[in-house]
Parts: sequence; structure tokens; C-alpha cells
Amino acid sequence: MPKVTEEHRLARRQQIVAAARLCVVEQGFHKTTMADVIRESGMSAGAVYGYFKSKEEIVAAIAEEALSTVDELFEKILATEEPLTPLAALEAALNHIVAVAERPGGDVTRVAIQAWAEALRNPAIKATAQGKYIQVRAHFEAVARRAQADGTVDASVDPHYIAQVLFGFLPGFILQRLLIGDVSPDTYTAGLRALLQP
Amino acid sequence: MPKVTEEHRLARRQQIVAAARLCVVEQGFHKTTMADVIRESGMSAGAVYGYFKSKEEIVAAIAEEALSTVDELFEKILATEEPLTPLAALEAALNHIVAVAERPGGDVTRVAIQAWAEALRNPAIKATAQGKYIQVRAHFEAVARRAQADGTVDASVDPHYIAQVLFGFLPGFILQRLLIGDVSPDTYTAGLRALLQP
Repeated sequence: MPKVTEEHRLARRQQIVAAARLCVVEQGFHKTTMADVIRESGMSAGAVYGYFKSKEEIVAAIAEEALSTVDELFEKILATEEPLTPLAALEAALNHIVAVAERPGGDVTRVAIQAWAEALRNPAIKATAQGKYIQVRAHFEAVARRAQADGTVDASVDPHYIAQVLFGFLPGFILQRLLIGDVSPDTYTAGLRALLQP
Repeated sequence: MPKVTEEHRLARRQQIVAAARLCVVEQGFHKTTMADVIRESGMSAGAVYGYFKSKEEIVAAIAEEALSTVDELFEKILATEEPLTPLAALEAALNHIVAVAERPGGDVTRVAIQAWAEALRNPAIKATAQGKYIQVRAHFEAVARRAQADGTVDASVDPHYIAQVLFGFLPGFILQRLLIGDVSPDTYTAGLRALLQP
């Protein structure tokens, strides 16, 4: 028998995560069972349970995958040689969200909204959401500090509070995009341009 | 037998809505059944079905009640004789959200988050959410037009886009308040003050 390589393991794991994402997007978190994920993945139950013990673990992996390029995104944002503005950072974040949402295999922002609701009563999902969002917010805090150093944002305000607001733009964009459908990074950036300090 | 007055009908209706809100806050939308609502309300099944035919109708009534004072809130915001700033409008909206959330009988922002998730697959809930949020956004569009007229916001930008962003601040605040717990109208207003045009 061939030895199972690490590459093979990762590909199998990703296959399960993709199957679970499709199930949650189509049926919602509650109606999705491990049996659905197993069927959709085309793998055996034993194989799937070898990677994930519960729906909660799979949802954490979906979040992990969705946010896997966030560090890179913020590296790019902070790499600008111009004075960094909150507008530029938010525009990049909005474009990134839409690019990730439009990847084939199910809009992961739909999974995010399911996770918000689930987090209210499921401590494992709440812990995952908290961890992920605190990580994204820390990136926005770095943006705030940089903007303060560059003189584009009032330096007397706690950058943690600024990060709350910058991060806080994103759920409202995600929600309007899915529930109302008339927002885009372009309309949002136009609105932001009118409101934010130049 | 005494005639059932309109006042009596309204009180009964409110009793059912309050019972349903408690159930959804405690168990989530999916696990809440009409039987739970009937038990919690202390009324008979026949009586409850005389007011509401489905969970969807009750959720619409919860949203209706939660947003019943929104018109009044924006009337107050627009009544200022000073030049109206987006910061002042958002600060008033954030304080209003927390005041409504902290009313006894279950935090209605928890019901809102449940409704966001449910709206993705339930057309009746989606229609309710759309209707309500388009209504709140229209109020923010009035704020944007007034701020443009007052010279506190760039008058060349479509006020509809500005309203998208102003409305879009609120879900991120609600979410951080419930999932992370470290935001308040004060921290958020401080962050907003650093970011928004003076």
C-alpha cells in the first residue's frame, strides 16, 4: 500500500471542508448533518471522522480556510509607501471579501452569517468566531496605528476603538450584499469616501 | 360575556410576541416550535393561532416591535437645529440599539442575528428583513441628505451610497457587542470620531 503523504491528507481534508461548505450554504448549519457531509464528500464515514469529529470542527476549518489569506491581505495594505488611509484599507478589505465570496464552491459569507447565529448558543462556534474576529480586528488596529503615525487619523484616540469601527464596517456590507443585494465595493467605497476624513 | 376590546387583543398579541422572543433568544429560531411559544405564552393553542399562523409571522411581529420606535428616533435626530453630522446620528442610533437590547424580556438583537441567518433560506423571513432594513436605510438616507444640505458631508456623492455605509455600521456593532463583548456606544463613538469627517 502506498504511504499516505501529508499532501494527500491535506487534499482529503480540503475535500471534506468543501463538501461541508456546500451543505451549509444550501441547507443551513442546523439541517446539515455529518451524514450529509460524508455523502457530499464522496468519502467513507470512517475517513471523514478521521479528520473531523463534529460539525463544529468543520465549521472552524471553513472559517480557517476563508480567512487564510487575511494576513497576506493586510501585509499588502500596510506595504503601501503612501500615507495609509482607512478608506484605502477598507476598499481593499471589501474587494477581498467579494473575491473570496465569489470563489466557486459556495459563498462562504453565507456560512459566516450562519456561524454568527449559531455562536449565540454554541460555545465552540462562539470561541471560533471570537478568535477569528479578534485576529482580523488586530489587523485593523495595525492599520489604525499606521494611519495615526501617517497623520491620516486623529492620533489621540485609542486605536483599539478605531479598529472596532473599521472591523465593524464589514458585517453590514456582507449582510446588505446577501439580504438586499444592492451594495458593491464600488457603492460602499463611494459612500465611505463621502464620510471618512480625507 | 364581556366583549373583547381592541386593547385586549393588542395585549394578547404582545403577550405572544414576548413569549416568542424569549423562546428564540433562549433556544434559537430553529429549535423554537409553535408549541414552545404556546406554552411560554400561557395561552391556548387556539388563541395563539388566532393571532399568528406561523413562526415566520411571529418573527415579523418581533421585528415590527423592535423597530417600532425607529421613526421617532430619526425624527428626533433630524430635529436638531445644529448642522447635522453623521457622527451625531450614529451615536443616537447606537444608544438606541443598546436601550432596546437591554429592555427586559430578552435581547432582541439576538433575534435579529437569528433572522439574518434564517433569511438566507427562508423567503418569508428574507422579505421581512429586507423590508425593515430598507426602511431603516431610508431614514439614514434622509440623514445623509440633511448632512449634505448642512455642508457636513460631501454633496457630490449619491446619498443612497452614504446611507448604505451609515446603516452598515450597525450590524458590526451588534455583532461585536454579542460575540466579543468589548464594544459600547462610547468606544464606538470614540472610534467614529477619529474616522469621520468633523
